[in-house]
Amino acid sequence: MAAGSSMEWLKSVKGVILDMCGVLYDSGEGGGQAIHGSVEAVKRLMDSGLTVRFCTNETQNTREKFVQKLRVMGFDISVSHVFSPAPALIHILRERALRPHLLVYDDLIPEFDGVDMSSPNCVVIGDAADNFSYKNLNEAFRVLIGLEKPLLFSLGQGRYYKETDGLKLDVGVFMKALEYACDVQAEVVGKPSAKFFQTVLNDMKLQPHEVVMIGDDLVNDVGGAQGCGMKGVQVRTGKYRPSDEQHPTVRADAYVDNLAAAVDALLTNQ
Amino acid sequence: MAAGSSMEWLKSVKGVILDMCGVLYDSGEGGGQAIHGSVEAVKRLMDSGLTVRFCTNETQNTREKFVQKLRVMGFDISVSHVFSPAPALIHILRERALRPHLLVYDDLIPEFDGVDMSSPNCVVIGDAADNFSYKNLNEAFRVLIGLEKPLLFSLGQGRYYKETDGLKLDVGVFMKALEYACDVQAEVVGKPSAKFFQTVLNDMKLQPHEVVMIGDDLVNDVGGAQGCGMKGVQVRTGKYRPSDEQHPTVRADAYVDNLAAAVDALLTNQ
Repeated sequence: MAAGSSMEWLKSVKGVILDMCGVLYDSGEGGGQAIHGSVEAVKRLMDSGLTVRFCTNETQNTREKFVQKLRVMGFDISVSHVFSPAPALIHILRERALRPHLLVYDDLIPEFDGVDMSSPNCVVIGDAADNFSYKNLNEAFRVLIGLEKPLLFSLGQGRYYKETDGLKLDVGVFMKALEYACDVQAEVVGKPSAKFFQTVLNDMKLQPHEVVMIGDDLVNDVGGAQGCGMKGVQVRTGKYRPSDEQHPTVRADAYVDNLAAAVDALLTNQ
Repeated sequence: MAAGSSMEWLKSVKGVILDMCGVLYDSGEGGGQAIHGSVEAVKRLMDSGLTVRFCTNETQNTREKFVQKLRVMGFDISVSHVFSPAPALIHILRERALRPHLLVYDDLIPEFDGVDMSSPNCVVIGDAADNFSYKNLNEAFRVLIGLEKPLLFSLGQGRYYKETDGLKLDVGVFMKALEYACDVQAEVVGKPSAKFFQTVLNDMKLQPHEVVMIGDDLVNDVGGAQGCGMKGVQVRTGKYRPSDEQHPTVRADAYVDNLAAAVDALLTNQ
């Protein structure tokens, strides 16, 4: 992150939101591994006095399990500082007295403990992976089409992601499938939804212009944050591709080699 | 079909295209059963001297097996007079030297005997039912995304259909899923594609205005045929619903109680 007049905004930063996969660690066998320099960078950031939060679209684990996995890699993160779609959705369900039919990954189900799921009046889909069977999709569809006003929530809207054994279809693809089947539009919970970012900002007690989002996903992290009035920085790790720096509609406020470099620039300019 | 000046067009009809499921028979356990009066009506029509063809979006059987099933119900139909999406697609594949990766119902696969499927350069999806697993969808997706220019064919674009054990998601839903995943638009083969209807007209050696399509699906049968310049008649059997007669965009040239009534009107006016 080159210093200079265009980087003046760094001085006004009071808070940082970090994307997790592709910024802190790379996913893969055995849960993945920390990206070089990121454990140390997170520690420096948290010791700096800046307000730090974590924001992920991860829906294959409860937050507790997910944070545990990161602890094993060396990250010392508090569960309450991690924002993921499922808890945000549960808040919405309670607020609007909704009872979900779930089509999600098995390991996410404990997150819904205590949520009333009798006589469902909405359908929730997450990255269910192998649970996206024809049978389960038909079940979710029948609940949806049977409602007077079909209501579908999708935990994210990703197209696909990469695992060690190849590309995998993400939740957005099945969201589009059910949208077409029932002629409805899903409510997306998670990045890049502005409502989701706003929840994090509220918790930080900061204004958007005081906060920078650091992520590897140009559209969902950087573009989503900028859409809320935050600054957005893209790291050249994770799913970053050189073509991102010539994207037709989204331009990051800075591109940096990795999280360590981003933290260097931030702390130098405080 | 009330006689009268508005029915004058019946006199100029030289050919008839019949939809099958919902017009000839109702699907269900053991392959379904003939609709009352339809066996006799088809026989009268074929004996009348009018040119008769059959047009279906059925993709869970080869044409041979499908016609065999209808023979058991009492219909005496020639395989060469039945037009279904798979043979139309195979024609396209040969014309454009394409090698498909198939995601279809097992019983449809023999239809592709002799088609080169090595190093696929396109993906074909039909109503694969239980074969729409996460694993199979990922496989189709990886072939598609790996192509320089992803090419997806969909055998129909239905949203859902009804079977004895409930509503089932149709091929159109998975077409939308793969379209979103790869940011492509599928080529639809089958009704209501104009190209598909034109193939039937070519075989009949008739002009569109000389032909009437009789179907139970207002949009795909009646609307599709009218879009090609044919007349379209809806029968009040199969998936017909009274609300079809007040459809915002499609108006049939006539609504009749069933195929027998349609044939009565046609033959009376010849």
